[in-house]
Amino acid sequence: MLKILAITGIRSEYFILQPVFEEFLSRKNVELKAIVTGAHLSPLYGNTYKLIEKDGYDIIKLETLLSSDKLSGRCKSVGIQIMGLTDIVSREKPDWLLVLGDREESITTAIVGTYLNIPVAHLCGGDRVVGNIDDSIRHAVTKLAHLHFPTTKENGERIIKMGEEPWRVHVVGNPALDSIRKQPYLGLDYINGKLGTNIKENEPFILLIKHPLSSEVELAEKQMEITMEAISELGYKTIVIYPNSDAGNYGMIQVIKKYEKKFDFIKAFETLPRDIFVNLQRKTALLLGNSSAGILEAPFLGLPVVNIGSRQKQRQHSENIIFVPHDKEKIKEAINKVINDKEFIRICKNCSNPYGDGYSSKRIVDIILSTPINSELLNKQITY
Amino acid sequence: MLKILAITGIRSEYFILQPVFEEFLSRKNVELKAIVTGAHLSPLYGNTYKLIEKDGYDIIKLETLLSSDKLSGRCKSVGIQIMGLTDIVSREKPDWLLVLGDREESITTAIVGTYLNIPVAHLCGGDRVVGNIDDSIRHAVTKLAHLHFPTTKENGERIIKMGEEPWRVHVVGNPALDSIRKQPYLGLDYINGKLGTNIKENEPFILLIKHPLSSEVELAEKQMEITMEAISELGYKTIVIYPNSDAGNYGMIQVIKKYEKKFDFIKAFETLPRDIFVNLQRKTALLLGNSSAGILEAPFLGLPVVNIGSRQKQRQHSENIIFVPHDKEKIKEAINKVINDKEFIRICKNCSNPYGDGYSSKRIVDIILSTPINSELLNKQITY
Amino acid sequence: MLKILAITGIRSEYFILQPVFEEFLSRKNVELKAIVTGAHLSPLYGNTYKLIEKDGYDIIKLETLLSSDKLSGRCKSVGIQIMGLTDIVSREKPDWLLVLGDREESITTAIVGTYLNIPVAHLCGGDRVVGNIDDSIRHAVTKLAHLHFPTTKENGERIIKMGEEPWRVHVVGNPALDSIRKQPYLGLDYINGKLGTNIKENEPFILLIKHPLSSEVELAEKQMEITMEAISELGYKTIVIYPNSDAGNYGMIQVIKKYEKKFDFIKAFETLPRDIFVNLQRKTALLLGNSSAGILEAPFLGLPVVNIGSRQKQRQHSENIIFVPHDKEKIKEAINKVINDKEFIRICKNCSNPYGDGYSSKRIVDIILSTPINSELLNKQITY
Amino acid sequence: MLKILAITGIRSEYFILQPVFEEFLSRKNVELKAIVTGAHLSPLYGNTYKLIEKDGYDIIKLETLLSSDKLSGRCKSVGIQIMGLTDIVSREKPDWLLVLGDREESITTAIVGTYLNIPVAHLCGGDRVVGNIDDSIRHAVTKLAHLHFPTTKENGERIIKMGEEPWRVHVVGNPALDSIRKQPYLGLDYINGKLGTNIKENEPFILLIKHPLSSEVELAEKQMEITMEAISELGYKTIVIYPNSDAGNYGMIQVIKKYEKKFDFIKAFETLPRDIFVNLQRKTALLLGNSSAGILEAPFLGLPVVNIGSRQKQRQHSENIIFVPHDKEKIKEAINKVINDKEFIRICKNCSNPYGDGYSSKRIVDIILSTPINSELLNKQITY
Repeated sequence: MLKILAITGIRSEYFILQPVFEEFLSRKNVELKAIVTGAHLSPLYGNTYKLIEKDGYDIIKLETLLSSDKLSGRCKSVGIQIMGLTDIVSREKPDWLLVLGDREESITTAIVGTYLNIPVAHLCGGDRVVGNIDDSIRHAVTKLAHLHFPTTKENGERIIKMGEEPWRVHVVGNPALDSIRKQPYLGLDYINGKLGTNIKENEPFILLIKHPLSSEVELAEKQMEITMEAISELGYKTIVIYPNSDAGNYGMIQVIKKYEKKFDFIKAFETLPRDIFVNLQRKTALLLGNSSAGILEAPFLGLPVVNIGSRQKQRQHSENIIFVPHDKEKIKEAINKVINDKEFIRICKNCSNPYGDGYSSKRIVDIILSTPINSELLNKQITY
Repeated sequence: MLKILAITGIRSEYFILQPVFEEFLSRKNVELKAIVTGAHLSPLYGNTYKLIEKDGYDIIKLETLLSSDKLSGRCKSVGIQIMGLTDIVSREKPDWLLVLGDREESITTAIVGTYLNIPVAHLCGGDRVVGNIDDSIRHAVTKLAHLHFPTTKENGERIIKMGEEPWRVHVVGNPALDSIRKQPYLGLDYINGKLGTNIKENEPFILLIKHPLSSEVELAEKQMEITMEAISELGYKTIVIYPNSDAGNYGMIQVIKKYEKKFDFIKAFETLPRDIFVNLQRKTALLLGNSSAGILEAPFLGLPVVNIGSRQKQRQHSENIIFVPHDKEKIKEAINKVINDKEFIRICKNCSNPYGDGYSSKRIVDIILSTPINSELLNKQITY
Repeated sequence: MLKILAITGIRSEYFILQPVFEEFLSRKNVELKAIVTGAHLSPLYGNTYKLIEKDGYDIIKLETLLSSDKLSGRCKSVGIQIMGLTDIVSREKPDWLLVLGDREESITTAIVGTYLNIPVAHLCGGDRVVGNIDDSIRHAVTKLAHLHFPTTKENGERIIKMGEEPWRVHVVGNPALDSIRKQPYLGLDYINGKLGTNIKENEPFILLIKHPLSSEVELAEKQMEITMEAISELGYKTIVIYPNSDAGNYGMIQVIKKYEKKFDFIKAFETLPRDIFVNLQRKTALLLGNSSAGILEAPFLGLPVVNIGSRQKQRQHSENIIFVPHDKEKIKEAINKVINDKEFIRICKNCSNPYGDGYSSKRIVDIILSTPINSELLNKQITY
Repeated sequence: MLKILAITGIRSEYFILQPVFEEFLSRKNVELKAIVTGAHLSPLYGNTYKLIEKDGYDIIKLETLLSSDKLSGRCKSVGIQIMGLTDIVSREKPDWLLVLGDREESITTAIVGTYLNIPVAHLCGGDRVVGNIDDSIRHAVTKLAHLHFPTTKENGERIIKMGEEPWRVHVVGNPALDSIRKQPYLGLDYINGKLGTNIKENEPFILLIKHPLSSEVELAEKQMEITMEAISELGYKTIVIYPNSDAGNYGMIQVIKKYEKKFDFIKAFETLPRDIFVNLQRKTALLLGNSSAGILEAPFLGLPVVNIGSRQKQRQHSENIIFVPHDKEKIKEAINKVINDKEFIRICKNCSNPYGDGYSSKRIVDIILSTPINSELLNKQITY
């Protein structure tokens, strides 16, 4: 019996992990538990641990997120998380730790695995996203983790350049695409009913998700204001999803609420069920904001993206993205192009997709299950 | 007024940092505080914070070390340290964080600097020491820190290969040599008086320092036994210094005590004053064990080293070191060679020294004081 | 120079402490610092630390509040707080710790003072409030604190019965009355302008503050619904202030928001400036809900109170309170009586007031400054 | 199935709890887990968690003890413990929490039970021991706990006087006597063999256990010196057990080691197996020091006690104790009296014993199992 302990701290991350969970549980002699921590347990982010519970996974709750809009809150939560993880991992004695990306739980899990001598499998490393501390954290996790599952060839090569032994690096694609691939189609009536919206067939509407940047915390509110102003002047129906739990989000939420109150065509949600979200991605005219879904998932769906600001800058992307600064007129112009320019829409439909084919989970699980846990795995050596 | 907050968790590390502290305080418009944490505040390691206090630095105490001989103790202490550091750094609002090496305080400081957006200057990165988790931690710190001060050219090149922007990397040598250079000479009478030993002029004696390896915790006691047996069979006067606070050390200390009780020519010390230690290095026939002083400081002194086990393996070193496994006969043989082989002794006296000239502190301080604190410094970009 | 370290975790508590702060700072050779923690540093509770900063006190921030609506969140925050307080108190080495009431910071301060051998002055102990864990916490704090400042004679006697040495117990009244006494009068125009309300001279309006009970967390939302329904059916203008940070509050806030959206005569505020709040108390027809202000402050103002539920049950109170259960009709009936029954209004105007005369701070500070800090103070003895 | 979660932090406490554990496990439909924390997990105190594991109980490890000889170390550990306990208790969802006495784990368990709304059964409350912070902690625990199991009638009455409802208070005797009663007799040969001693039949020897006082930390080392000097001048064979983990113990241990090295008739042990310890109590001429065993267990065995200093002062005791100050001559005189005064020895043999009959565990378990868990149990009310 192999025991996997996965760690997840936020909804967006869980959606990428979930197909991997499912794949693990389809195998024999594998036990999977999920430590659910961070924003998942906060009412401010919709208590999304309930989702994971409802999906039927065996979860261990670990409260760590401080109620704070300061940088210090996030940082102190990292310490709280390491303390709690150490207790749990020591008790559970898993064979593997599984974590994803570049958030608090990524670095804490990598540290705990390193100090407790338990191998860490890291998903979605090697990526490059400028202007956020996420980049530093992600690469630090790479230097600690024992097995790497980058989504693209480019990312895999970056990991190897950083001195990781090539046998530790496996390009597998983005597992989030697995769940998009499997997600059943929903009709517009159903969606309108659930959301209280009245989007009509073929009516172009906008899906807006915007997160704060750690390097621009003080500007977060002002930047949100610019985006919402652009939206309100254009008048397209817009579905807004609240930002994640990073510092700066609080002011952004206030701005969203203000515009939602003022304009009927703007509807905001703390969070959306995964099935609704995927089907909105399938139907929306564009994804607006700076969500990584625009980079990682949109090409698989042929979905146009208008990315505002520097959050996804320099990240490996397809032809479906237009990058614009925080400038109201430029944002409006890009949205109009994306909605009306038939040629651009056609390009998006057929855009290249470096992020995989929707069969990543199988690869990840096959590799983890066939990697022997020995001193070669545990004692990392830089290649130069 | 520029405010520097340095973090130190253990005596050995403090001795490398101290010349840098001194240099900072010799400058105008610079304020330096030291957060003293980890083993420094433990009676088990001699409450070495008192040393730093006595040296006259402005210290902030932060207790973090759990009383544990398990891997989990060290790991949980990392979380406690991040929590406490976040509180202190948020309050002190320093312009720079300064830290060294690859221990708990290195990774915690790097994480706190990253999340709080305060630049981290990292000393002694880029090094390679196989068989310990220190390596993973050190490289992860490199991916988080904003300014790098490797001791050797080789280490500096390794940092650049890892994707760090070359302007962040400054090869400066090992600052520990600054304090060795400045340390006044002490006579044997004085030393014998202080230690209760009776070493005679020109009598060959051994200085033994051995630390546990995170990857070989279960073997630590047994390995210490082998070393002590070799020592006891040879019968040379031997001065032993206790291992550091890493997991596995407790059993090692018990072994040392046992042999000390049985053999008059073995004397063990929890710790030694820096002036005594440097002068012992100048007078001893060899440094035995696996202390990094054998790699980093011994060449500067032309001192022979017998390194036992894999702790310093593959690390950049000079000609003064003989590597032996945990094998009693091989240890005895190497010690005999080092004490009696005139040619080898001559080679050591004139060995090459990649670790600098004893003027590192001035370089480090000059560079930190002339580096502007701006978004270019704070927003790290991988070079590929 | 005597150094006082006061600890405050929530706005309501700060308003009682503030006159004591002011009095301390009016004395010679006294230094006062305030550790600001808990809900004060949460954006969810209005980041009220800014208030204390603006009032000019020397503050030390300590983030501790987890973003949680579970009982565990509050409890874990207690641990985080003890860790942080220990660090700060060890560093600051105050002569006295000063704390109030029965919340997290009360028990953590009492524990830290006890273990660090620093005397703790405790305000507002000896009180009795049934149905909340506050009662257990408050009495536990009494068994740990070194000097007691109960508000009333009855509370002082209760403390002595609990085995505290009588010389430690000083009945001083409620210091919150000091600030009410000193608060300048504000006109209705000014208040309407600030709040965006349009209350007319002599128009009866309601001030509603309702907190969750730890023993009825699951009922909190439902109970709020009943109260809001009663309010909405009566149609009086109502100013609602959000509940405090205890578990259960999140659902209550949702209910308040729902009714505020639906009814123009209901206006809700996260928090109100102290000067506005005191003047609202002076002008409102009644205080509704379960705020302790109804017990502790309303008699001083001759203000009628309708207390809903069991939060203030069995607490020493004056004739100005009507207790009602969570029953819509009973709530409506009580409100109507309080607004229309001239005789009852007359009784309230002249009600007895066991909570002091508005000169408590002077007494507290005089006693602390004249109490010698010695082993008699520090070594507590139960009297039987 | 009723689930009991017991918390233990130190060996001495475990020995009192252990008969209660055994009794619980003899019942049907009861599940017992023990959270093992504090000194139990420290190598400095002999890693006594292994004892509990060996005894076959289902344990959950929680590391909390900082490696410190400062008051702050103990205090910060309290915070670490609350954090960890909250996580574990939230996960385990026990029906009852069980804890004993007046140490860190007592107050943390009481706080966690209070905030999480889980009933706490508290053993050995109501006691009075002057000159230590233990007294304040013990009484604070009483004000938080839901069911009280004092050892004596006097202690039970003290609890009721403190305002606890009488139905919560059950005088049951000291459960430690249950295990003394059941402990098989061991011959002197066996004991000498195990300890490396050579005590002869009927030879009077001394059993010495001395703990530091929180109120006299700075004196701890000096006071130990006085005691050891008295011992060394008398020349009786003496078995010393190391002090517990409280601040001040470190210096005491150094003193003990010094005398042990110098005098053959002094033998010191970090700790002793329970069976050896009980049989030493049966055979020794006296118990010397300030261990609570002298108060709580010695009368059951008719064993004379010389209690040094103020640690057990004013505590309910029998006729078998002589109290002496830290004065070498007075200590020697008392030891001589206890060893040579036949009349005093006779009085001790037949002394009164308020601490029970060795059947306490059955009473405790019967009462816990028959107490309904409802709001009456959970909502504490002070009786006045």
